[in-house]
Amino acid sequence: MRNLLLTLCFDGTSYHGWQVQKNAPTVQQTFQDAVEKIIGIRENVTGCSRTDSGVHANMFCCHMKTESTIECERFTAALNANLPLDIAVTDCREVALDFHARYSCVSKEYIYKISNTKTRNPFRENRYLRYSYPIDEKLLDSAAKGFLGTHDFCGFSSSGSSVEDTVRTVIHSEVFRNGDEVVFRVEANGFLYNMVRIMTGTLIGVAQGKIEASEIPDIIKSCDRSRAGITAPAYGLYLNKVNYNL
Amino acid sequence: MRNLLLTLCFDGTSYHGWQVQKNAPTVQQTFQDAVEKIIGIRENVTGCSRTDSGVHANMFCCHMKTESTIECERFTAALNANLPLDIAVTDCREVALDFHARYSCVSKEYIYKISNTKTRNPFRENRYLRYSYPIDEKLLDSAAKGFLGTHDFCGFSSSGSSVEDTVRTVIHSEVFRNGDEVVFRVEANGFLYNMVRIMTGTLIGVAQGKIEASEIPDIIKSCDRSRAGITAPAYGLYLNKVNYNL
Repeated sequence: MRNLLLTLCFDGTSYHGWQVQKNAPTVQQTFQDAVEKIIGIRENVTGCSRTDSGVHANMFCCHMKTESTIECERFTAALNANLPLDIAVTDCREVALDFHARYSCVSKEYIYKISNTKTRNPFRENRYLRYSYPIDEKLLDSAAKGFLGTHDFCGFSSSGSSVEDTVRTVIHSEVFRNGDEVVFRVEANGFLYNMVRIMTGTLIGVAQGKIEASEIPDIIKSCDRSRAGITAPAYGLYLNKVNYNL
Repeated sequence: MRNLLLTLCFDGTSYHGWQVQKNAPTVQQTFQDAVEKIIGIRENVTGCSRTDSGVHANMFCCHMKTESTIECERFTAALNANLPLDIAVTDCREVALDFHARYSCVSKEYIYKISNTKTRNPFRENRYLRYSYPIDEKLLDSAAKGFLGTHDFCGFSSSGSSVEDTVRTVIHSEVFRNGDEVVFRVEANGFLYNMVRIMTGTLIGVAQGKIEASEIPDIIKSCDRSRAGITAPAYGLYLNKVNYNL
């Protein structure tokens, strides 16, 4: 038995997230289909997290225990030849049998991309949230710093989540501009359901002048979902990095 | 009668270029459909150039003579609401009646995007040429400088072109790297059919060691299509800027 750590990159536009669902195409199912086509066995592949419908991944990790002896480089090439063009495998390596894509994860980084443009940009469809009014990225960055540290993020989670422990540690949190795109980058030891999308919505509230940049620590402490901003749309969100101590 | 200069941005993936064709969707036809839907008249819209199937435009200009009195800002909004998401209008302005999108053009700039990555990137499908071996962008830049100046580019044109005068002046020509993307940027007073794609193919020949960087002026002088490189695929090419003296 071997345990393989596979790294993926995918455009989530056509998928109902990672996790297998009845009656809807998902990345996990599409990936397991490709694996089955190559090694002849429908292996279970475990992802580092669920992702919402339409969310993208510059880096997504999963592990797969298999009796197959297929060599990693050959497996990567075969997967890339059999997967649709919106999913790619960028790395494959053998890891310890007790490695788990989700539980061994030390931290994850997400980015949220905002197109700060008056008119829509065809190259950014389904990949950016468009915000057509001016954005003061320095103000948003100072607001984003309010997320840093270990907090109970109970107010930054959508109902429907069944997680009991809502304390998470945010390690990096910043907003920067790159021409006409504004990016929110956040790294934490874990994220609650919709947490990054609600953080982004809160930053948009700051851009709109509805929320004060200095208010974020108070909003976190209040544990009141209604004080945070909207849940920003899924299509601007990217899982950007998954960190393990390998 | 008014003459409107309209600036577009489009992802060319789904189109057989700009120019109206029988039995194939084109940007011009799609654009004229949207115009007709808004002002009720099928106006003729004249583009700044033809583009090949799959070629993109960060900036594309066209003019349209019309009796319609629709105000530019309203027209832009209406067009963006009626055009498919892969075509956007970024500007509309009234120009002199003798302005012609093609003949009034002083220079055009193209960029060609190469994804210098080992594995395919789902976010770059249909938008980049992938080249998986190392690229020395400094070497390619020195090669690209060989295109500068006024030359007869007869060897850098696909057969099927009926243009008689094949002399063009290249004003800017450079190759630069931006992380794992390598970009060829070229500006000229005009381009022959497939000229940028053949220039790019020649630079790829340099990357492959098949063509010497210093050889480009000789290849141009030879007027021999077979000495230049391949015609690089359309999907990496973007019309990037169209310049007028307005």
